[in-house]
Amino acid sequence: MKFSFKNDYSEGCHPNILKALTEHNLDQQAGYGEDLYSLEAKALIKEKIAGPDSEIYFVSGGTQANLIVISSVLRPYQCAVSASTGHILNNETGAIEATGHKILSIEKADGKLTPEDIIPVLENHRNVPHQVMPKMVYISNSTELGTIYTLKELEELSTFCKEKGLYLFMDGARMGHGLTSEISDLTLEKVAELTDIFYIGGTKNGALIGEAIVINNRELQQDFAFNIKQKGALLAKGRLLGIQFLELMKNDLYFDLAKQANSQAMKMKNAMKERGVQFLSDTYTNQIFPILSHDLIEKLSEKFEFYVWKKIDEHFSAVRLITSWNTNDEAVNSFIEIINKEL
Amino acid sequence: MKFSFKNDYSEGCHPNILKALTEHNLDQQAGYGEDLYSLEAKALIKEKIAGPDSEIYFVSGGTQANLIVISSVLRPYQCAVSASTGHILNNETGAIEATGHKILSIEKADGKLTPEDIIPVLENHRNVPHQVMPKMVYISNSTELGTIYTLKELEELSTFCKEKGLYLFMDGARMGHGLTSEISDLTLEKVAELTDIFYIGGTKNGALIGEAIVINNRELQQDFAFNIKQKGALLAKGRLLGIQFLELMKNDLYFDLAKQANSQAMKMKNAMKERGVQFLSDTYTNQIFPILSHDLIEKLSEKFEFYVWKKIDEHFSAVRLITSWNTNDEAVNSFIEIINKEL
Amino acid sequence: MKFSFKNDYSEGCHPNILKALTEHNLDQQAGYGEDLYSLEAKALIKEKIAGPDSEIYFVSGGTQANLIVISSVLRPYQCAVSASTGHILNNETGAIEATGHKILSIEKADGKLTPEDIIPVLENHRNVPHQVMPKMVYISNSTELGTIYTLKELEELSTFCKEKGLYLFMDGARMGHGLTSEISDLTLEKVAELTDIFYIGGTKNGALIGEAIVINNRELQQDFAFNIKQKGALLAKGRLLGIQFLELMKNDLYFDLAKQANSQAMKMKNAMKERGVQFLSDTYTNQIFPILSHDLIEKLSEKFEFYVWKKIDEHFSAVRLITSWNTNDEAVNSFIEIINKEL
Amino acid sequence: MKFSFKNDYSEGCHPNILKALTEHNLDQQAGYGEDLYSLEAKALIKEKIAGPDSEIYFVSGGTQANLIVISSVLRPYQCAVSASTGHILNNETGAIEATGHKILSIEKADGKLTPEDIIPVLENHRNVPHQVMPKMVYISNSTELGTIYTLKELEELSTFCKEKGLYLFMDGARMGHGLTSEISDLTLEKVAELTDIFYIGGTKNGALIGEAIVINNRELQQDFAFNIKQKGALLAKGRLLGIQFLELMKNDLYFDLAKQANSQAMKMKNAMKERGVQFLSDTYTNQIFPILSHDLIEKLSEKFEFYVWKKIDEHFSAVRLITSWNTNDEAVNSFIEIINKEL
Repeated sequence: MKFSFKNDYSEGCHPNILKALTEHNLDQQAGYGEDLYSLEAKALIKEKIAGPDSEIYFVSGGTQANLIVISSVLRPYQCAVSASTGHILNNETGAIEATGHKILSIEKADGKLTPEDIIPVLENHRNVPHQVMPKMVYISNSTELGTIYTLKELEELSTFCKEKGLYLFMDGARMGHGLTSEISDLTLEKVAELTDIFYIGGTKNGALIGEAIVINNRELQQDFAFNIKQKGALLAKGRLLGIQFLELMKNDLYFDLAKQANSQAMKMKNAMKERGVQFLSDTYTNQIFPILSHDLIEKLSEKFEFYVWKKIDEHFSAVRLITSWNTNDEAVNSFIEIINKEL
Repeated sequence: MKFSFKNDYSEGCHPNILKALTEHNLDQQAGYGEDLYSLEAKALIKEKIAGPDSEIYFVSGGTQANLIVISSVLRPYQCAVSASTGHILNNETGAIEATGHKILSIEKADGKLTPEDIIPVLENHRNVPHQVMPKMVYISNSTELGTIYTLKELEELSTFCKEKGLYLFMDGARMGHGLTSEISDLTLEKVAELTDIFYIGGTKNGALIGEAIVINNRELQQDFAFNIKQKGALLAKGRLLGIQFLELMKNDLYFDLAKQANSQAMKMKNAMKERGVQFLSDTYTNQIFPILSHDLIEKLSEKFEFYVWKKIDEHFSAVRLITSWNTNDEAVNSFIEIINKEL
Repeated sequence: MKFSFKNDYSEGCHPNILKALTEHNLDQQAGYGEDLYSLEAKALIKEKIAGPDSEIYFVSGGTQANLIVISSVLRPYQCAVSASTGHILNNETGAIEATGHKILSIEKADGKLTPEDIIPVLENHRNVPHQVMPKMVYISNSTELGTIYTLKELEELSTFCKEKGLYLFMDGARMGHGLTSEISDLTLEKVAELTDIFYIGGTKNGALIGEAIVINNRELQQDFAFNIKQKGALLAKGRLLGIQFLELMKNDLYFDLAKQANSQAMKMKNAMKERGVQFLSDTYTNQIFPILSHDLIEKLSEKFEFYVWKKIDEHFSAVRLITSWNTNDEAVNSFIEIINKEL
Repeated sequence: MKFSFKNDYSEGCHPNILKALTEHNLDQQAGYGEDLYSLEAKALIKEKIAGPDSEIYFVSGGTQANLIVISSVLRPYQCAVSASTGHILNNETGAIEATGHKILSIEKADGKLTPEDIIPVLENHRNVPHQVMPKMVYISNSTELGTIYTLKELEELSTFCKEKGLYLFMDGARMGHGLTSEISDLTLEKVAELTDIFYIGGTKNGALIGEAIVINNRELQQDFAFNIKQKGALLAKGRLLGIQFLELMKNDLYFDLAKQANSQAMKMKNAMKERGVQFLSDTYTNQIFPILSHDLIEKLSEKFEFYVWKKIDEHFSAVRLITSWNTNDEAVNSFIEIINKEL
């Protein structure tokens, strides 16, 4: 069996979760998120974000979280603004548009938005009522390219959004990896303070399924549960989500897992850098994009699975390597060995 | 702790499932339903329905299955027809309408539809193009009232639908309970033969989450996966669904669990019948609706949780008791003991 | 040529409108409802309803008005409540559901809603978040059956809606006929005072096209224009609507036309009543539903067009006769003559 | 009063239309497009396109036509592809997305699409089922920039679409201006032969309202009327649309009007060209975009209304001048006089 660096959802879940599921299995609980585990997990998250007035809902996955949040927050004629790399723009089969909302795309090489990026979009959408009204800024952290927001960048964006009456929504499918990056100065508490709504991704960081939507803006909290049910996202056995987030949040397991994933990626990145490998972008999370010769790619493919991301020229292509909470030293060392031998 | 007869999703899942999840946990698999467990589970279901050309998709829950199936099958101006008790009409927060489709309701005391019920609806919707076009018949088995379809009833409905160009869709959230009812002469194979599309509900019969949508009509199979992704229902770790259905389908565990639930309900029903208790409807699945005195209801409430379903008069109300695969003899016997003592 | 009593939109428009269209034809005006005629017509309507703070938008037809109003007012999980005879339920090809909203139907023989009708619907929709949230009461005046609301009835309904946090929306496709009925004590001013939003129908009362949506509840006014554009209802040449409503509102032509239609219907009704004819319902607007023998229906069909509405028995059926602003004495007298001769 | 070159919908309609509306005003006709005028107008259009098997529907405006066509043709997961200048992308308040469909934008300076533009979009959308499926190519003729397609260009695009299984839809809001451009070699017959569906715009070429949707691909014809009704576009007095298109199609008035508009624009363009004026784009229809000094713009603004389209530098801006069927020699000559005097 080849070891896979294709994504961060190849395995099951952290063993603690299976242990807890087994332990509480026959315990009878209320359905639809009213179980004790969900309540406890929500309390724990509120504590961690220092947000007693935030509201929390668990759903199964990222596309589901995105479509529920956006369709719940926006009125029919309002739209979201996203970097051109945004997951909602490229990899959700039009899920947002299917709820009736346009997404305006802003070309960005690093996958991050700044006030300067958004200003011209606002200026070009003033022909009332002939154009959609931009009302939400959608960002991801870490982004789809593995880049992250600094505290200063998020503060500026947050201030800008407040001034312009825009809601700020952070897709946190890889929130753990973003916040535990060695160059990150953001915290979950700051994210909660600076956004109207965001989610904490479990699926890509040790859970079987699960994203925790956190609504900080009280105006957006009203009746939110209806939207979850209407979109088919309210699990009868909400306990499955509650137990998982309870385990992940306990003792900061969530952050430890992300750190582990990042650290394995950094080991591989640094090994390649030392051998003079160039990268498509300079990332400090669990996604790296080294540019390798086709010969080397073939060699690596004998032992590893990964995506060839982008052809650079006749001889070189960028590949994408993703590590997870479960990427072990054996795989990483074996990868580095080949690099060292071949370069 | 009181024992709960409130629903069939109070517990976790059958232990075999947790065992399999644990066993395969660190095995790396392709995402989005391409994992080996999902493929194997689908093969097993096709075998059981004798439907090699059917296509199968796993989703998380019943409302999700309903909204994906209906919005995928119908064109914008087409609608579904349902008994007035239909889950899609009453308990899904307008999920179907939110995808753009009307549901026409037919008043039925037993929750079941016959050709005779549907004919006048077709006749009243011929003012083209001023009215929606009925195009799908939605039924449940067992129904929301615990009743079931006989083979003959389903054959007649199926023939009628084919003649009228209507798609027949069976909501199988409680398919196991329906098919293993002591009075049922239907089989899963027959359901597959007689419907265009249906699903096998896992959530209410031993799974943590999961419904298996089975598409028999080949015309409805085209591009179905897009709809699952667009509605946010495609799990990254599809293995979670695959492993569960693999366990449930192996050695007919699925049917054994349903039989067990039905049997416990029948024990309680028969015990009450013997004491002269009347029922709101005569059911042979895991839902029973005895009419009890308020005194007795209060007495039972000391040891059990259940819903008071409908007030009958000053002294009597119908209650709803639901059993599950995990309803044990102790609970049932203790319930019967009280009945015998009090009546 | 047979004279048609089939509906109130068989002819073109009142000659004053064509005269004004011709007179102003080459005058250059701003597009999209910013023309002087539209502005003047809106000012005139505000005057007539004594509602300087109301906002007015012109659209082309009734289904369009209904779908824009309802989808603009309601959040995704909210629904409208309507009498079972409501136009939005039966004759709009699911236009409301296509915007994502369920309509709850209340069986009413007279097509009118009272607080008593609505209370049980509210009570049956409290299973948050598993059910849609009733948030709007949709009524028509005159109704689809030709019946009307009295001032007292509308006051009670309005008070009830305010208490329950429900928006009250009046479909006024036949507003003129309702308000000028000989038994009506309602006025346009009172309608504006007692509803959150309503419209004044032009199409069925002398215009070529056109309904004037009047938004009284200021909270519902925000950004309304966007919805009109998004649904494809914003005419480039808004002048076409402005000129028509200007003509209709000048000197109360609108009400004179409706009175004329009602009066012709009443002449026919009274003539038939004198001869002992029974009616399906007792209406005082431009729709009457006499129950006639099949022989007489055949006789009348030689000279007139109309719909046979409902079979009563082997020998009798109810027919629907609709008069318009243009129904002349000749047609009415000729109809009455046959009645008098045959009965 | 200043003469307006702001758009081609500032006036009412061609006098023949008002004459016909007046002449037929009191004639009773069937509603909803079943009137004799609509039937006759449809027959006339079929004749002109040599398309006896095409189906024709009249609606009120361009956004309405676009949203009905696209939502009718596409399945939920399919999307349209458009040049970045497309009206559906920029000026319809998200009307297409509101029906659930994404539009993929292709940057094009001239507003026209070629197979080479579309190929990479198809290649970038093969990650089934994680991305929308491109299924329709949306083009305009003349485009939003006044440019046009040649016969050869349309043939190549049509062939490409057939090969790739894409529907080709032409927005003809300015079809008349496109086809009668002095450099056009396209005909209405060829448009019908080469597209699956298109429309003939009346609003911008002499009608009060009205676009004629022509469905050539028989597969797309099925049940189309339902969509028109559901979107609120089916006028009760369809005669208003029928009479207008009958007048426009008779003796090719439609093309004469467009020619007149084009010719007036070309007079102004040529006069400016002679004086050395540069243009933003080289157009041969009724839209021209001369680059003028701010002094000259101010001067012209004293007598004319028009939009300043794009700032070029400190001293120069491009303006947009649009002529219509009603742009008279007096206005044009007076404009040219100022040009000649000032340059």
